[in-house]
Amino acid sequence: MNSDEFKQIIKEDTELINRKLKDSIDSLECPEILKESMEYSIMAPGKRIRPIIVIQTAKSLGKNIDKVLPLALAIEYIHSYSLIHDDLPAMDDDKLRRGRETSHIVFGEDMAILTGDSLLNTAVEIGIEGIPDKDPWDYISALGYLFKAAGINGMIGGQVRDIKEDHYAQKLSDIEKTEDLKTGALLKASLVCGSVPFIGFNEEVQTLLQYGNYIGKLFQITDDILDRTQSSEILGKDSGSDERNGKSTIVSILGLEQAKQRAQVYSRMAKDELSKLSGDFSFFYELTDFITNRDC
Amino acid sequence: MNSDEFKQIIKEDTELINRKLKDSIDSLECPEILKESMEYSIMAPGKRIRPIIVIQTAKSLGKNIDKVLPLALAIEYIHSYSLIHDDLPAMDDDKLRRGRETSHIVFGEDMAILTGDSLLNTAVEIGIEGIPDKDPWDYISALGYLFKAAGINGMIGGQVRDIKEDHYAQKLSDIEKTEDLKTGALLKASLVCGSVPFIGFNEEVQTLLQYGNYIGKLFQITDDILDRTQSSEILGKDSGSDERNGKSTIVSILGLEQAKQRAQVYSRMAKDELSKLSGDFSFFYELTDFITNRDC
Repeated sequence: MNSDEFKQIIKEDTELINRKLKDSIDSLECPEILKESMEYSIMAPGKRIRPIIVIQTAKSLGKNIDKVLPLALAIEYIHSYSLIHDDLPAMDDDKLRRGRETSHIVFGEDMAILTGDSLLNTAVEIGIEGIPDKDPWDYISALGYLFKAAGINGMIGGQVRDIKEDHYAQKLSDIEKTEDLKTGALLKASLVCGSVPFIGFNEEVQTLLQYGNYIGKLFQITDDILDRTQSSEILGKDSGSDERNGKSTIVSILGLEQAKQRAQVYSRMAKDELSKLSGDFSFFYELTDFITNRDC
Repeated sequence: MNSDEFKQIIKEDTELINRKLKDSIDSLECPEILKESMEYSIMAPGKRIRPIIVIQTAKSLGKNIDKVLPLALAIEYIHSYSLIHDDLPAMDDDKLRRGRETSHIVFGEDMAILTGDSLLNTAVEIGIEGIPDKDPWDYISALGYLFKAAGINGMIGGQVRDIKEDHYAQKLSDIEKTEDLKTGALLKASLVCGSVPFIGFNEEVQTLLQYGNYIGKLFQITDDILDRTQSSEILGKDSGSDERNGKSTIVSILGLEQAKQRAQVYSRMAKDELSKLSGDFSFFYELTDFITNRDC
């Protein structure tokens, strides 16, 4: 797969996901203002990296994606709720997200809390409704894995570590553990949701999880680099906030150059894992490069 | 069933639920401070009315409660998360709940937001783990119903209506609709969770839902009466807040005496529904009286 083919797939998948997300929002019955605030956040121009991973994992295994589309949507709902709650004044107090004013700026803090709750709860509903009539168990395993990854020993646990850590006196290993939970857990869940419903938790999935481990670290390290080097305008969210908050990151500890080198190492290790897989995972080699070299 | 037998059942069920909730908290793996804050809220001395309804519905149908215990726990987790988020400064800004300082007072606003998220997410995990190997579908239906009831066209939707309504110029029917969503939906879900996993969505369940409808209204009207007539000390939460906030309630519109009469009407209508059921629902006659006459 060359870079143009990769970009074409990203474009097509993004359009598909945006269409499916819009359909799911349109079908909701609830107070109009809540629908509006949910749509505002979920339809903001995001990278859709998690649902794309679900879809492309299924395709790499030669499977029909219909079975896992509900999981792909549920993951994006979960990601979106987590952004709204993270941005709240009592949390990171961010004003900009995905190029738009954050939910609490537009709808007020009370509505932002409830909109986050709504997106998480709707993710559950979509996930449960998607349980297939035939052979439901592998899908249910993936669904269970997804909510563990989103939960207290996954994404939320990482968030708690993040706000409770002593950011001034931190070891690299502690930071990496926090980031593994905050970012890595849901990326790994995306790989699980695209594979396990078809093949169960087999050895191939274990290798995918190793791959997920490395791209999680890669994603976070490039995030830290971009936070230091790019403007808020380009990122579509508040940049430089780690430095302003005196927060230790991989970049603040290693320095920019060494952090970039470390990203290259993770990139190689990620690709090593891909080479062990039997399906056609060419998309994921390109994805690894894409994450390594991304500029927003 | 006489009143003493009823009290004995409430006592035993409450102990069982508290034990199971404590076990579930003890088994969690996550940052210690998060476990502490989750335990603080979920183990606060609540009435456990929702999980008791799950258990007693199953028993009234002559069924083994083991199958529905996960749903009973999930409901209490959902109820507990909703209390934490409702109490936040940006929402009702309450300081007292179940006789304790509210979560954000003790743990800070950021942790209270994440603790609420954690309890909701853990409810999902418990619900999914509880899917029985044999005949999973009726359980899955109940699980789906539960999260619909907790969601945007249920509990959260009611909460949004509540914060967005014009409380000064409101019709009784609007208030009742809001309360049906905020309180009634989860009570009805408790009846569904105690029955549907055994018997599916049959006619008996439709009658139970009608019963749930009336005790939801009954529960809310007695809540409004208590908010007006009891002290914060007895209620274990801030009382008189409706009146202070100039909020229209059934009591403020009808007056105290007419509200009490209305409660009696709902109580009779609830019992009428029970009389249509074939199982031994004697517990629920007592429960109806208990809600009607409660003083906290």
